[in-house]
Amino acid sequence: MMSVSPPGRGEGEDIEEDASPLIPSAAGAESLRFSSRPSPPSHHGSEQSSHRLLAYSDALISIVATVMILPVCHTKIRADQELEESLQQLLTTKIAVYIMTFLIVTVAWASHIRLFQVIERIDDVLALLNLACMMLITFLPYTFSLMASFPDDTLGILSFCVCAIIIGLIQAVIVIYGFHRPYLLNAHICASEDQISYKYQILKMILQAPALFVLAGILSFIYCPVAYAVLALIIFLPYVTQCTQWCQNKIKGPKELQRVPFYTFHPNEPLSKERVEAFSDGVFAIVATLLILDICEDNVPDSKEVAEKFNGKLIEALSEYGPEFLAYFGSFVTVGLLWFVHHSLFLYITKSTRLMGLLNTLSLAFVGGLPLAFRLTHEFAANSRNELEAIQISCVIIFLASLFQFAIWAAALYNEKETLHHHIRYGGKEHAFMFAKLSLYPSVAFVTFCLTYVLSKFSTEIFHLMQIIVPFAFVLLRIIVQIVLAILAWLFSHLKPRTSVLIEEEESAISVNEVAS
Amino acid sequence: MMSVSPPGRGEGEDIEEDASPLIPSAAGAESLRFSSRPSPPSHHGSEQSSHRLLAYSDALISIVATVMILPVCHTKIRADQELEESLQQLLTTKIAVYIMTFLIVTVAWASHIRLFQVIERIDDVLALLNLACMMLITFLPYTFSLMASFPDDTLGILSFCVCAIIIGLIQAVIVIYGFHRPYLLNAHICASEDQISYKYQILKMILQAPALFVLAGILSFIYCPVAYAVLALIIFLPYVTQCTQWCQNKIKGPKELQRVPFYTFHPNEPLSKERVEAFSDGVFAIVATLLILDICEDNVPDSKEVAEKFNGKLIEALSEYGPEFLAYFGSFVTVGLLWFVHHSLFLYITKSTRLMGLLNTLSLAFVGGLPLAFRLTHEFAANSRNELEAIQISCVIIFLASLFQFAIWAAALYNEKETLHHHIRYGGKEHAFMFAKLSLYPSVAFVTFCLTYVLSKFSTEIFHLMQIIVPFAFVLLRIIVQIVLAILAWLFSHLKPRTSVLIEEEESAISVNEVAS
Repeated sequence: MMSVSPPGRGEGEDIEEDASPLIPSAAGAESLRFSSRPSPPSHHGSEQSSHRLLAYSDALISIVATVMILPVCHTKIRADQELEESLQQLLTTKIAVYIMTFLIVTVAWASHIRLFQVIERIDDVLALLNLACMMLITFLPYTFSLMASFPDDTLGILSFCVCAIIIGLIQAVIVIYGFHRPYLLNAHICASEDQISYKYQILKMILQAPALFVLAGILSFIYCPVAYAVLALIIFLPYVTQCTQWCQNKIKGPKELQRVPFYTFHPNEPLSKERVEAFSDGVFAIVATLLILDICEDNVPDSKEVAEKFNGKLIEALSEYGPEFLAYFGSFVTVGLLWFVHHSLFLYITKSTRLMGLLNTLSLAFVGGLPLAFRLTHEFAANSRNELEAIQISCVIIFLASLFQFAIWAAALYNEKETLHHHIRYGGKEHAFMFAKLSLYPSVAFVTFCLTYVLSKFSTEIFHLMQIIVPFAFVLLRIIVQIVLAILAWLFSHLKPRTSVLIEEEESAISVNEVAS
Repeated sequence: MMSVSPPGRGEGEDIEEDASPLIPSAAGAESLRFSSRPSPPSHHGSEQSSHRLLAYSDALISIVATVMILPVCHTKIRADQELEESLQQLLTTKIAVYIMTFLIVTVAWASHIRLFQVIERIDDVLALLNLACMMLITFLPYTFSLMASFPDDTLGILSFCVCAIIIGLIQAVIVIYGFHRPYLLNAHICASEDQISYKYQILKMILQAPALFVLAGILSFIYCPVAYAVLALIIFLPYVTQCTQWCQNKIKGPKELQRVPFYTFHPNEPLSKERVEAFSDGVFAIVATLLILDICEDNVPDSKEVAEKFNGKLIEALSEYGPEFLAYFGSFVTVGLLWFVHHSLFLYITKSTRLMGLLNTLSLAFVGGLPLAFRLTHEFAANSRNELEAIQISCVIIFLASLFQFAIWAAALYNEKETLHHHIRYGGKEHAFMFAKLSLYPSVAFVTFCLTYVLSKFSTEIFHLMQIIVPFAFVLLRIIVQIVLAILAWLFSHLKPRTSVLIEEEESAISVNEVAS
């Protein structure tokens, strides 16, 4: 296993290191606390900690990653249309575009992380170059959806390639600029004697993608399908490499690789935990507010309409929008609680690996689908077949989003000594509680899904009941877990032969990886 | 002046304090770095640092604060309509609603800051209570716009009051819960012997607003205008108190007030700088991406339309959207550069006062207006009177947004020993550079505005030229400032009598406050 030290953004505060100790303010006192770490000998004019730049970039990228859910959400579905058919129509283009965009933007984000793991401090020029890079990243979803709508036109693929090439070139300029001023670099690289070989290795890695994009651009003039194949290769190469390397490691055992730190795709390689959190927060925040964006814009009734149609009774006009408010609150509660689970989980994660990052991305992609799910639940007449299916789709999305969160935990347990806080490790005092927290949403969604099959007439009622119960379940979770553990302990001591099987089953579900390792 | 120590969220990492030192990972090493500060003797089960909760809350609140710009942006303006008339129509309702919503949400955010300056650590119950509070805050803009659309209907004002009362009650529950578990509290209060009196004073302050909202709700049944007056009083009381106290301090000189720390509206009282930054980042990020949200949804041409209308030529169909892409890039660049200026400024601010927070809010409110401005610039036919006015409005919005940023700096200079890093203080080595950075946008916007009056035929060209020049001006700023300073120094030494007036004029504009203090 690798033991490369991640750069750690907590140390960014040393901009205040040379703050005069005469300052009586608490900020000065705080800076003194951080100044205990070895600091560079001198300040070179205007270099800055990159903390806020990265937070802003994360916010921009997370909003843009979820942006393609909007065309899916706003697809008009006629009430008389069978959802199954229209769902297929949705699936073929818009949902695929949404998920692909999400993954593409995440790939751009991952390369941004790696870049700023090499360059730890910024100055004004780097901040402006980063903004230019951000502008092109925010434009990627549009070029991609153009490509998806007009697959036969070279313009879509060309514009996508041009954007990607310019992003790559800007990143290369950032690296060259960074190595030109070594005090901006990662301390590890800055202290190294072999800076130039680092520089060329990093540049080679960064320029690989643009070179392939140039190839794809040229191929698009000759024969489009080959260009698409090259494109898919570039975008999913990191994920494929990850999986194959993981499998290789499993079969042949881990081997030490002579590589530049931070520029590998090793699944156990550390990923900046803070940036994963910031990106996740951004996605959760924009998803939670997407529906209120709609409600604020569309659902304020027109005063003329109220006077004519409802005899001036505002409350009657508003009751027409009732289901949309319900959808908003349902979506907000679900997103909020999934954020809460995510927050609890990452609080106990000490290091995030690339595999966990990938699982997190998949979980977030499904979280992004929640506004669609909740919008669907109120589009159709009560007790119609469409409504039933809409509710079942909602259950599936919630189930998958929460299941991938569970998978993050499982992946962390797999290397628990490196990735988990000791409280939460297998057998730790918080282990059962975290297990309950993470399994609440998948199990509730699964039960609701099954119930809607059995009691299809009451599907809406069951779904709303689920929405109301879950928050209370979270509040009471600690008590429930303690009761369940007490009952299990009591059963265990009194009826040993009967329950040991049950407990073992539960335990084996968690520790299956441990046994393997 | 007060010298209350702000809570400082950098210390949130101590969740890893008791991480086993056996862990070889770098995360463990990082936690060791932070563990040097005195830590509470024991962990009480599940308490957590509140850092991420606050970051998520800031993201939610900042998105919601800017949400009411969408109805303004999407107001359809007929091309034949005179903008002046329709602008008035916009102004009377939607822009007023936008600015009011922004201020109301900011007031809720400020009270959220104060609350979590008292409660520094959270557990699961507090996290869930906070999410409930967030849900109601995100709903405030809707109830407010309902109130604005139907001023005569009691339903609008009632729903607003009900939301505000529930928010207040939840905050009171959070405080009671926090004092019930003192290890969650601010170290200052936790160590105090007089906890109970603190508790009642804080509760009294928190419950003041809900009590007034109950009054407003009751009054709305009797006589609406009085209810609105009470409402306005509650919302703007903090700002009014701030201004009057500031004036009082100026006239009578500062006096020490015996108050609970963090629960005053003293203009020099510290405001959590990190949270101001996080909130600003959220506003900048959502504003920068608002136009791409629109573009991704609306501007992907329909394949049928392209085949019929443009003979299958995609590039011709896209050239129809050309102005909107230009608007997007213009808006992104301007928002990005304003963020850059904000970032540079707050990098050198060591403490943020309430007055600076208010100026920051006003600046952000105008930043939120940028998508509107840029949308207007491409709505009209070239060289029409409407287009000219749209460009002038854009200039005014950019001017005001950047001018308030300049005002933040001026306010910081006023108390520079407490609020500014010594690099940037008057006469510090970065002073001239920061001055140039902050004055670039106001001066460019002002010059553009004047030029459009003189050369009204070329207004669009001038505006686009401005958009292209400004980023380069930022890149070259350091060089330009050094050249200007060299020229000034040269002039100063050679032509002393003639230029001293000029330099003094420039200096006096900055140091007028210093002389006064």
